[in-house]
Amino acid sequence: MSGRSSFQKINKACKVCTRRKVKCNKQIPCDNCIKRGEESECIKSVTDEFISNPSIEGESYLQGILKLWQSYEYWITDIGLLKTKNTDSTKKIPNFDTQIAEWKFWSAFIDFEQSFKLLNFTVENLGPLYFGCLGDINDLFIQLEVYWQRQNTFKDEPSDDFFLIEDTYRAALLWSVFSMCLYYMPIEDLSQILPVAPLCEFLGIDQNQEWSESLQLTAYQGFTKCTLKYLERANYNRNPDIRFVQSFIILSTTNFVFSDSFLVDSLLLQSVHIGKYFRIDSHKQYAGEDLTTDISKSVFSKIWLHLCIMDYRQENPNRRGLIHTEIPSLLQHAAFYQDMANFNVYQQEDSLESLFWKITSLERDLDKFLTASFKPQIKTFDAIKRELNIFDKKIHNTEFEPKSINAQFQRFLSSFLLSSVQWKLHKMYLIYFNSSDALDKSAHYVQILIKLIESNMNRGYSAFNKHPLVLQTLSRVVPFYSFYNIFEVNPQVETLNNDLANLLLALPVILGEKWVGLSYLIQRLNSLGIIWEKVRVEGTSKNWSHPVLKIIQDDVRVVSKMNSRTLTMIQGAPSFGDITNLEENEYTENDDEYFSRNKISKEFKYIVDEFKKEHSIVKIFT
Amino acid sequence: MSGRSSFQKINKACKVCTRRKVKCNKQIPCDNCIKRGEESECIKSVTDEFISNPSIEGESYLQGILKLWQSYEYWITDIGLLKTKNTDSTKKIPNFDTQIAEWKFWSAFIDFEQSFKLLNFTVENLGPLYFGCLGDINDLFIQLEVYWQRQNTFKDEPSDDFFLIEDTYRAALLWSVFSMCLYYMPIEDLSQILPVAPLCEFLGIDQNQEWSESLQLTAYQGFTKCTLKYLERANYNRNPDIRFVQSFIILSTTNFVFSDSFLVDSLLLQSVHIGKYFRIDSHKQYAGEDLTTDISKSVFSKIWLHLCIMDYRQENPNRRGLIHTEIPSLLQHAAFYQDMANFNVYQQEDSLESLFWKITSLERDLDKFLTASFKPQIKTFDAIKRELNIFDKKIHNTEFEPKSINAQFQRFLSSFLLSSVQWKLHKMYLIYFNSSDALDKSAHYVQILIKLIESNMNRGYSAFNKHPLVLQTLSRVVPFYSFYNIFEVNPQVETLNNDLANLLLALPVILGEKWVGLSYLIQRLNSLGIIWEKVRVEGTSKNWSHPVLKIIQDDVRVVSKMNSRTLTMIQGAPSFGDITNLEENEYTENDDEYFSRNKISKEFKYIVDEFKKEHSIVKIFT
Repeated sequence: MSGRSSFQKINKACKVCTRRKVKCNKQIPCDNCIKRGEESECIKSVTDEFISNPSIEGESYLQGILKLWQSYEYWITDIGLLKTKNTDSTKKIPNFDTQIAEWKFWSAFIDFEQSFKLLNFTVENLGPLYFGCLGDINDLFIQLEVYWQRQNTFKDEPSDDFFLIEDTYRAALLWSVFSMCLYYMPIEDLSQILPVAPLCEFLGIDQNQEWSESLQLTAYQGFTKCTLKYLERANYNRNPDIRFVQSFIILSTTNFVFSDSFLVDSLLLQSVHIGKYFRIDSHKQYAGEDLTTDISKSVFSKIWLHLCIMDYRQENPNRRGLIHTEIPSLLQHAAFYQDMANFNVYQQEDSLESLFWKITSLERDLDKFLTASFKPQIKTFDAIKRELNIFDKKIHNTEFEPKSINAQFQRFLSSFLLSSVQWKLHKMYLIYFNSSDALDKSAHYVQILIKLIESNMNRGYSAFNKHPLVLQTLSRVVPFYSFYNIFEVNPQVETLNNDLANLLLALPVILGEKWVGLSYLIQRLNSLGIIWEKVRVEGTSKNWSHPVLKIIQDDVRVVSKMNSRTLTMIQGAPSFGDITNLEENEYTENDDEYFSRNKISKEFKYIVDEFKKEHSIVKIFT
Repeated sequence: MSGRSSFQKINKACKVCTRRKVKCNKQIPCDNCIKRGEESECIKSVTDEFISNPSIEGESYLQGILKLWQSYEYWITDIGLLKTKNTDSTKKIPNFDTQIAEWKFWSAFIDFEQSFKLLNFTVENLGPLYFGCLGDINDLFIQLEVYWQRQNTFKDEPSDDFFLIEDTYRAALLWSVFSMCLYYMPIEDLSQILPVAPLCEFLGIDQNQEWSESLQLTAYQGFTKCTLKYLERANYNRNPDIRFVQSFIILSTTNFVFSDSFLVDSLLLQSVHIGKYFRIDSHKQYAGEDLTTDISKSVFSKIWLHLCIMDYRQENPNRRGLIHTEIPSLLQHAAFYQDMANFNVYQQEDSLESLFWKITSLERDLDKFLTASFKPQIKTFDAIKRELNIFDKKIHNTEFEPKSINAQFQRFLSSFLLSSVQWKLHKMYLIYFNSSDALDKSAHYVQILIKLIESNMNRGYSAFNKHPLVLQTLSRVVPFYSFYNIFEVNPQVETLNNDLANLLLALPVILGEKWVGLSYLIQRLNSLGIIWEKVRVEGTSKNWSHPVLKIIQDDVRVVSKMNSRTLTMIQGAPSFGDITNLEENEYTENDDEYFSRNKISKEFKYIVDEFKKEHSIVKIFT
C-alpha cells in the first residue's frame, strides 16, 4: 500500500557461486562457500560490491561502507560475542565426588526462613520475569513448605532412595527461583538475608568482609549449578516434566543465557522436546480457535511463547530455529487483520508474553536482512514502522506511573524492547536508504535506551539493568556508532559514543564476562579508527582497499569459520581445530594469494598483521 | 506408467470435522479430534465406513475389516508396544551415591585382558553394526591402550580433576562397544572371558552358578548404565563431541532402543544437535556434488544416515521426524534417475548405511498409509515393488556364501530388512486391493523371515536374532495374522500362526520385556477370536457392531490418548493422568452415551467390559 519504491534490488549470487555455476543462497558468507572453505572470497566479492559500486544514485562513500555493518553486526556482535563457544576437549572435568560436594554445599546454603525471604523478594520484585510461566504463584509457597518437610524427613531417616522424581523437580524449580533472586537482588537486601561468611570460608578467602558484587556473582553461579544438578538428578532425559521447562525459562532471565551457548541450546532443545511431549504447543497462539480459556491453556501458551522467543534469540549458525519459525510475523497478520471489519488493532494485549512475541516477530523481520546480500524494499520497513508505532502508543498511553515494582519492571522491559527494535529499524533506514533524518532518529532511540537505563539507576532500580535484554541490545547499539565513527567524523555520533561509553562503565558487574568482551570490541573498533585516520593507501583515491576494510572482512571470516567447524577424522578419532590458532591458520593459508592477486603492498600486509597480533578478534569469545 | 487404476479414492474428512466444518487432516484419529478428546467418535466414524460401505465392487466383508488393521498396526504394535512410556513422577530415584557406587562397580568389572577380548569379539562378529560410524577400526585398540594407561595413572595418583573431557568420551565410546558385546556374545564365549561370581555377589545371589541368559541381560544393562554415566560425566550437554553420537549409535544396535522411548528420543535429539554443530549433515547424501572422498566425509555421511534411519524408526506422535524428512524417498529419485542415460540402477551400493537408508525410505512410503484414512493408488505400490525387486537381485545375486561372520551378519540384516518391507508391501496389496495372490505372497515373505531366523539358529548364529530389527518386524508380522485369524478361518493363516508362535518361543531371552508385551498381545488377539466365534449379535446379519470391533476401536483410542497427554494445572502445579486409570476413565466417560446412541444391549456392554478387565490393553506398555 506504500508508494512504489524506486530502488533497485541488489540481488546477485556471490562471485564464487557465479564462477562455479551453482545456486547461491545469497547470504554473507553463503552456504556453498562455507562448505568449501572459501568464505574469504565470498565475503570479499559481496562486500567489495557494496563499497565500490554505489549503484543507487547519490549514495555516498560512507553509505557503501555502512552496508558492511550488517554482516558485522550479525557475525561479530551477535554470534561472536554472545553465542560462540570455545570447545576444548582437553579441559579437565571435576569428578563426581567434587561435583556432589559442591552441590551439597550450595543446597545447604539457605535455611527455612531465608528461603521464604528470597521467595518473597522474587514475588514482589521480579514478577514479570516468571509469573507467566507458572500457574498460581501462591502455590510456590506451598511447594516451599513441602520442600522443607521432605528435607527434614530425609535428615531424620537418610535412606538411599527416599527422594522421588517429584521431590527433585520441585527442588529444581524452587532453586531456579532462588538463582534468579540472587542474580537480581540489590547487595543491601542480600546482606540483610544471607551471611557471607560461609561463602568466604568455602572459597578460602578472608571471612571478614561484606557482600560484594563479585561475591554475589559467585553465589548466583553456585545457585545456578545447584539448580542444574537438581534437574540432572531428576534424570530429565528420562522423566519428562513441565517443571524442567519452567526452571529453564526462569534461569534464562539471568545472564545464564550468555554462559555457554551450547548448553543453553541443549536445554532449549530438551524444553521443546518436553513441551511437545505434553502437547503444550497445541495451545499456542494462532493455532486456531481456542474456546476454552482455563488456566492451563493460558499458562502453556505463555510457556510456548517464552520458548519461541528464546528459540529466536538463541538462534545461531549451528542451531537454526526450531519452533519460532512456525509462528508467522505480526506483519503478515496485520495485513490479514486489516481485511476484518471489526478488528481493533489497539486492543489490550492478552499477556506480556504475547506482546513480547509480537515485537520480537517484527525484530525478526528486520534481522533477516543482516546476512542477506540483497537490499530490502522500503515498504517493508514502512510497514514495520507503522506496527511499532502502534505498540508505542499502547505501551506509553497510560499517563500514571505504575506503583508496584513488578509493574515498573514490566514497563521498563516493554519500553526497552520496543525502543531497541525501533533503533534497529532506523539504523537500517540509515544504512539502506540514507533517509535524511535516519541518523537523528536512530540517535533518538539510543537516547531513549540510555534514559531508560539511567532512570533505573536514579530511582534505585539498577537491578532491572541486569536483564539479558539490556546487554543484548547494547552489544549491537554501542559497536554500531564506534564503527560509524571510524569512517566519518560527526559530532552527534561522538556525543553518542561518549554517552554510551559512560553507560557501559556504570552497568552492573554481575553481567560478567560478556560485558568484558563488549568493552574489548569497542576499544578494538576505536583502534581501527586510528588506523583509518593515519594510513592513507596510495594509488586509490577512495581507500577501497584499506587495511581497515581488510581487517573488518577478516573478522567476519574468522567468526563464521569458527561457527562452521567441521571435523576431520585422524586415525579414526575425530579432532577439530583449536580456535586459538584459527585466526593465524586462516591468515597464512589464504592471504598470500589474496595479497598478490590484489597487488597489495608489504606495508599494507604489515599493518593488518600487526593489528591482528595486538587486537585478536578471537578474544571476544574466549 | 502403470495401467490406470480403476479404484476410487476414499478421501473423506471424518464425520466430526465435517459436522464442525473444520479442515480434517484425515488421519485416524485426526489431529482435531485428538485435541478435543473426541478420538472415539473419530475412529468410529472412519472405521465404520471401512466396514459397512464396501465401496469397491466385489470387496468382501473381511476386506472391510482388514482396513482396521492399518491403524491397529500403527497404534498398537508400533506406538503402543514399542514406543509408549509410562511416566510416573512419584517413582523413587536412587541418590547420587548409589548411582556412583553402581557405576564404580561396573567400570571395574573388566580388566585389561578381558577388555581386549571383548573388543576382539566385536571386531570379528559385530562389524556391520558399528564399523560404519567409526573411522579406522584399529584406532579402537589404540584407544583402549590409552584408556588403561589413564586408568592406571589415576590409580597411582588419585586427584580430583585428573580426568579430561577427552578421557571420558574415550571411555564412553569403548563402554558402548563393551555393552554391545555383552548383548550379542553367546553365553559360551562369555563364560570363557568373564567370571560370573562378582556379579552374583553384587546382586546378592548364589555365587555357585554359571552365566545364564538373564544374568547376561543384567550385565548388559549394567554396562549400558555405565556407558550412559560416562557420557553424563563428560557433560555432553556442554561439551559437544562426535563420540557422543557414535556411542549412542552403538548402544542403539541393542534392545536399548526399546528400553525407554523418551530417553532414546532425548539422546537422539542431542545427537542431531551435536551432528549439526559439527556440520556433519553437510556431508549427507544428496547434498550435491561431493568431489572429495576422504575418510571423514564418508564416515560422517554414514553417521548421518544412521541418525536418519533412527529418526525414522523412533518417530512417534510426541516426536515427529527431525531430519529424515530432509531426504526424499528413493521413489522420487528413481523417477529422476530413469531420465539419465547412463545410470546403472544395479550399481554397487557405496555403503551398508546407504542401502539401509534406501530400503527404509521405501518402507516410509508404505507406512504413511497406516494412519491415512484414504486409499493409496496401486501404481505407488507397483513402483515400490519394482524398486524392492531391484534390491532383491542386488542382495542375493552373489552366489557364494560369505565366509566371515561379519559378512554373514551383514547379509542377514540386509535380507531381513528387505524381506520385512516386501512383507509390508504385500500385506498392503492384500488390504487395499485384495489381489488374488496377495495373501500367498505375504505368507511367502513371512516364510523367508522365519527361514532367516531359523537358519541363524541352526548355524550357531542365534546372536543375529537379537538385533532390534527382528523384534520390530515380528511385532508387526505376528499380530497381523492373529488379527486375520479372528475373522476368517484359513488353513494357510493357521499354519503361519503356528510357525510364528513357535518362532517367538525360540527367540533369545535378552530381548527382554518387549518380547513379553508382544506375546501378551498375541494371546489377547487369540482371545478376541474366541469371542468373535462365540458371540452372535442379533438383528444385524453382518456383525457390523460386534463387541470385538468395539474393543479393537477402543484399543486404538486408548493408545492414541496415552500418546497425546496434555497437562492440566492444579494450583499452579502441573499434573497428568495416571495411565493405569486411563482405560477405565476413558470407558466410563464416553461409553454410556455411545451405547445408548448406538442402541447397544447390556449383554454387549458386559462382554466388552469383562474382556477389558481381563485383558487390559495398557499391559502392553507397562
